[in-house]
Amino acid sequence: MEILHPEIAVAELNAATLHASLSDVSMESMNLLNQIADTYPDAISFAAGRPYEGFYDVDQIHAYLRVFCDHLRTRLGLSETAAARTLFQYGATKGIIGDLVARSLAVDEGIDAAPSSVVVTVGCQEAMFLLLRALRADDRDAVLAPSPTYVGLTGAALLADMPVLPVRTGEHGIDLDDLLVQLRRARAGGKRVRACYVTPDFANPVGVSLPLEDRRRLLDIAAAEDLLLLEDNAYGILGGGTERLPTLKALDRHRRVVYLGSFAKTVMPGARVGYVVADQRVTGRGGGAVQLADELSKLKSMLTVNTSPIAQAVIGGKLLAHECSLVAANQQETEVYRRNLNQVVDGLGRRLGSRPEVTWNRPTGGFFIVVTVPFTVDDALLEHAARHHGVLFTPMHHFYGSTAGFHQLRLSISTLTPDRIEKGLDALAAMIGEQLDGAALDGPGEDGPGLDGDGEVA
Amino acid sequence: MEILHPEIAVAELNAATLHASLSDVSMESMNLLNQIADTYPDAISFAAGRPYEGFYDVDQIHAYLRVFCDHLRTRLGLSETAAARTLFQYGATKGIIGDLVARSLAVDEGIDAAPSSVVVTVGCQEAMFLLLRALRADDRDAVLAPSPTYVGLTGAALLADMPVLPVRTGEHGIDLDDLLVQLRRARAGGKRVRACYVTPDFANPVGVSLPLEDRRRLLDIAAAEDLLLLEDNAYGILGGGTERLPTLKALDRHRRVVYLGSFAKTVMPGARVGYVVADQRVTGRGGGAVQLADELSKLKSMLTVNTSPIAQAVIGGKLLAHECSLVAANQQETEVYRRNLNQVVDGLGRRLGSRPEVTWNRPTGGFFIVVTVPFTVDDALLEHAARHHGVLFTPMHHFYGSTAGFHQLRLSISTLTPDRIEKGLDALAAMIGEQLDGAALDGPGEDGPGLDGDGEVA
Repeated sequence: MEILHPEIAVAELNAATLHASLSDVSMESMNLLNQIADTYPDAISFAAGRPYEGFYDVDQIHAYLRVFCDHLRTRLGLSETAAARTLFQYGATKGIIGDLVARSLAVDEGIDAAPSSVVVTVGCQEAMFLLLRALRADDRDAVLAPSPTYVGLTGAALLADMPVLPVRTGEHGIDLDDLLVQLRRARAGGKRVRACYVTPDFANPVGVSLPLEDRRRLLDIAAAEDLLLLEDNAYGILGGGTERLPTLKALDRHRRVVYLGSFAKTVMPGARVGYVVADQRVTGRGGGAVQLADELSKLKSMLTVNTSPIAQAVIGGKLLAHECSLVAANQQETEVYRRNLNQVVDGLGRRLGSRPEVTWNRPTGGFFIVVTVPFTVDDALLEHAARHHGVLFTPMHHFYGSTAGFHQLRLSISTLTPDRIEKGLDALAAMIGEQLDGAALDGPGEDGPGLDGDGEVA
Repeated sequence: MEILHPEIAVAELNAATLHASLSDVSMESMNLLNQIADTYPDAISFAAGRPYEGFYDVDQIHAYLRVFCDHLRTRLGLSETAAARTLFQYGATKGIIGDLVARSLAVDEGIDAAPSSVVVTVGCQEAMFLLLRALRADDRDAVLAPSPTYVGLTGAALLADMPVLPVRTGEHGIDLDDLLVQLRRARAGGKRVRACYVTPDFANPVGVSLPLEDRRRLLDIAAAEDLLLLEDNAYGILGGGTERLPTLKALDRHRRVVYLGSFAKTVMPGARVGYVVADQRVTGRGGGAVQLADELSKLKSMLTVNTSPIAQAVIGGKLLAHECSLVAANQQETEVYRRNLNQVVDGLGRRLGSRPEVTWNRPTGGFFIVVTVPFTVDDALLEHAARHHGVLFTPMHHFYGSTAGFHQLRLSISTLTPDRIEKGLDALAAMIGEQLDGAALDGPGEDGPGLDGDGEVA
């Protein structure tokens, strides 16, 4: 870092005069986690929620680009000049692979999405911001989300000045009784609750999936209460294959579900390509049928203009190379994740099975496992684990806005090799044993793999 | 467009409950311009502000990627695995080509920027939003901008709920006396004016450049009034070569200038890569030196996470292939733009030189020329010109938020061939002649090439 020499006339900005999101606790906590990870680069990391990188090869990027350009020429009949223009120039705000995304949703999820309802975005993160920005007309507007929740949703809401109202998480995901309680409480308090964010499949951070009956009931609640559901499905296809449950969008008969998709885990994060399916009708615009996707596209034109067609071409090429099935395209990766998940769950059992005060859940897919312990899990413990045991994890309080979760840690299984998992679990078990045996316990442990945050910390 | 069947339980959203930006007049006007362009695809377009595409070739994308990967391996010493990881995985929020961007600024602009002060963004559009979002802490905050102004700035401000206070534009760009008047008026009205947006070089839409003495005075005003300057330089290197003036940032001695850069015109729009240089110190954060770039990076992590490293690699490869000089890399393109600019100015003279009531300015670079006429230039006239004369332009009122500019039209010279320019000018001159001779004049024409919007329309 360059040394700054302040002088009288040199511009300075006081942090207090900048947007409030920049001073939010979540910003500080993300910075801290990154700092610790950077300080201990050799520690075995159960922290990073990144996809497995063992199959990455730069030649694939060239190959996907070629497949997509062949598609432009042969299937769409574009000239060489027109194909080049498609990749080099400004393009349609909604994107150039909406048709391939729609086909992929039909093939893999049984979702019937019109290409016109798809907006291709700069990762799912931009889609979340666009949605919350669109749904935030004034100070009354708010969105519900399970607590703990994905920090990306929290960040998008901060940027959009949209309050997130927490809903309790039970053993299998969002607690629908509490959803109704929170919805009515918010409405009684004058809030206009626009939507409920939910990740039914292998949610980050809790790893669990919502049972089928809860999915149906959630859709019924949405219809009865005139609520949109923002379904985030970044991990759905990375499950156990035959056990996959239908998405909310596949079950949706009343256009209640806005579907958020990501190619970060199923193709690569480096393309920064995600999308949103928003087929809800918008009234009051005058003239023809307007969909929510059209409104999101307008906002996108003011934010990023359009998603890089080069990046879209890379994703489109991978989709085309696998007949638009990401399930088929990810067979190797899914096998790695399944193997790692089993290895971590089994390994925890072998090392900590005799410690009834330590529990963990058993997701059947995705990247995450939550371990519950009777001692405090904070950033000081993470730093201690990194320094003295060479292992990293994510303290769960970061997903509760540091208001709860201080007896839980999240393990991510996605990037490690079997050998590193064994070493990492040895280190983790040593740290946990040391805490259990050596340190005074500061509070009661929780029973079972439940993920209730309520009441853990005042 | 799919036919929507509204039913009782089907979700509908009323436009009145969506974010106000979606109902802004600028949104409707951009849609309308696009509709007219789509309806008349064979019309000769002086409307599109796109770069020249005659040199585009998909093989270049592959070549740039290879050059950048060679750089990772040979100059940075990365393994094949690490190079793949750089392109495929999540990456640093500030980007992976900040060093190359800084070198390019040193080579082409004489700007001394620390790589740590650079945030690589999803086009310059994201950079504008990040800046305005950061600088908007509450309802008092506002930004000054010349009127007429680039619609991208207007859009970013709408998204950030940041009012844009207009400053008069004179013959050579922003009117510095009016800047002081507007600044004091805003402050007297309780506004906290955070910054002034300005495009000193070949501004969109007016095409003119700010003289050197005005640049120096603008910097003095910024220092005296404790104002940031947001310098947008999308077109600067596309000028006449030796005539280039120093940027505000190159002249800046007091960190008053936040510099906004774009590779859309100098490499390609399709990478969607831009950047911001923000070396202003931020106080009140505790701990070491924090720059505005660090704060923008935090906001970016909540908006798009990071700019696609694949897209950055394409830009980085082009920079590396030309020793980080975009002036050198754009010699062919600059020659095309100069030739087109001269051809349009000369062609207007030959066709309309005998009509003293029609005037135009004579920019020495960039993409745009403004023509002033004594009849009304609105979207109905554009539609008429497209339908009956086969020519497209942009009515200037779109850059005034439809409050002024109804006697001007913007011609973009960037994408046309010499043959199309001649045909387009014939069509344009026929349309103008028809209006001058046939239609009743609805108001006085303006004198000379001045670009004052004030008072044109109430």
